[in-house]
Amino acid sequence: MVRYAAMSRPPSRITGAAFEELLSAWVSQESFRFRVEAIEFGFVRLRLGFHPEQLRPGGTIAGPVMFTLADTALYAGVMSVAGRVPQAVTTDLAIRFLERPGKRDLLAEARMLKPRGRLAVGEVTLWSDGQDDPVAHATGTYAVPRGSAA
Amino acid sequence: MVRYAAMSRPPSRITGAAFEELLSAWVSQESFRFRVEAIEFGFVRLRLGFHPEQLRPGGTIAGPVMFTLADTALYAGVMSVAGRVPQAVTTDLAIRFLERPGKRDLLAEARMLKPRGRLAVGEVTLWSDGQDDPVAHATGTYAVPRGSAA
Amino acid sequence: MVRYAAMSRPPSRITGAAFEELLSAWVSQESFRFRVEAIEFGFVRLRLGFHPEQLRPGGTIAGPVMFTLADTALYAGVMSVAGRVPQAVTTDLAIRFLERPGKRDLLAEARMLKPRGRLAVGEVTLWSDGQDDPVAHATGTYAVPRGSAA
Amino acid sequence: MVRYAAMSRPPSRITGAAFEELLSAWVSQESFRFRVEAIEFGFVRLRLGFHPEQLRPGGTIAGPVMFTLADTALYAGVMSVAGRVPQAVTTDLAIRFLERPGKRDLLAEARMLKPRGRLAVGEVTLWSDGQDDPVAHATGTYAVPRGSAA
Repeated sequence: MVRYAAMSRPPSRITGAAFEELLSAWVSQESFRFRVEAIEFGFVRLRLGFHPEQLRPGGTIAGPVMFTLADTALYAGVMSVAGRVPQAVTTDLAIRFLERPGKRDLLAEARMLKPRGRLAVGEVTLWSDGQDDPVAHATGTYAVPRGSAA
Repeated sequence: MVRYAAMSRPPSRITGAAFEELLSAWVSQESFRFRVEAIEFGFVRLRLGFHPEQLRPGGTIAGPVMFTLADTALYAGVMSVAGRVPQAVTTDLAIRFLERPGKRDLLAEARMLKPRGRLAVGEVTLWSDGQDDPVAHATGTYAVPRGSAA
Repeated sequence: MVRYAAMSRPPSRITGAAFEELLSAWVSQESFRFRVEAIEFGFVRLRLGFHPEQLRPGGTIAGPVMFTLADTALYAGVMSVAGRVPQAVTTDLAIRFLERPGKRDLLAEARMLKPRGRLAVGEVTLWSDGQDDPVAHATGTYAVPRGSAA
Repeated sequence: MVRYAAMSRPPSRITGAAFEELLSAWVSQESFRFRVEAIEFGFVRLRLGFHPEQLRPGGTIAGPVMFTLADTALYAGVMSVAGRVPQAVTTDLAIRFLERPGKRDLLAEARMLKPRGRLAVGEVTLWSDGQDDPVAHATGTYAVPRGSAA
């Protein structure tokens, strides 16, 4: 699952536990259980536990669920470089659906392309757990509030 | 709210009632109540009733909710030109968030840019009910199954 | 060709002639002749004269030519609301190709979706002169420098 | 410059020389000199030689030049998996500009995200030669003609 060459990166500016705690205050729905599997400066791997409510007719995971995962992974990526900035907001997000994911956990790897500045740009690849080909890919921008840790 | 010049269009190939019925089989959540306000060939106006579960911290409607509305409006737009094709799937969707919507219904106007062929392309503008400036804008593509009504 | 309902808009903050003059200082290539056909606050119609160098093999106008027209129309749209800000730069631009344009002028209509603020968002539709269906559609963002007329 | 982990990939279905030859028939302009630096199945690194005509006022390389490079790298990526399919056409391309490139060669690395099927999806990162941070990032889709080598 590790697609990118190991690079020596500085550490993340937020811990996985701190990000998970921040999320749990937001997302009360049982159908959205996120776990940070890895977090470094500008890089995050996030797991979304499978839940039957994520399915749409036909037995595949719904597009808005994948959008939510991509957006959340990017949000973690932003904080990995800017520190704890819950007020950061998505400016735009473009998602491409590649394969239909089955009834499994989804994994997202986000990589920040432009970590500095008030507009943080990143890309996210989504996989279905245990499979090689990605199920979706997204790029997006977050506006990071001025005077934040970044 | 009507932004586009009146053009004489052929009628929609699906009725608003038929589309709403199709959706209700999909979306059981109480927090997603859609109503087709207008539907013509290649044009749809959809209303999403406000529900407190749509909010994220800060009291604004969450991005994935707007994504879901844009995607659903495009789905209706596809059927307005291709007829009842529930198997049509989103290939990609790019959404831009412009203003934070308040605690009100959201309205979406979708317009098909390329109604013919197996790839249906459209754009969607989202407004907060009663306000002039759009809150979001999206473009996207649906793959329409071969041999469908289109 | 006028697709949008007439709305009473304030006047543009740059004239068509001033924008054309600004462009001519930039674009010396004979293959790029732009003409502002209409400009209002937040709305622009731009014509790109056909030139054989715009063609790619197969006799259709090349994608980068359409990208250039979309980007330029958005640039004019930004100045229609922000005044003369040549330092404004494209942050991102997403273009969808719908039909292959023939050997004719191209027309672009740009509409600003979020005219205020330091990030100006707009959409552009491109037509082949004399035809009804659009050949391309783009959305994009410009960063408008602080302290500019906007 | 090699950002991705070495993976054992099958060989490209087109050679770098064959792709360069195909391009030279297309692009006669002196200001566009492409060189394939690496090509494997689903992966391409392309160099665009610097030329003063690529500059816009301010001394930075123009957006349409970067768009052209991203599009061309994706085109090579498509042929690396589908073989020689010059008729493949861009369906859409979304580019994000991250940093202003200086007066140097540009490098593009394209990676196919969905190599199989009639819609080939890929992503491209652009660097200014000799610098670490990317200057642009793009994702796009090519329609690959039926009955082609793919």
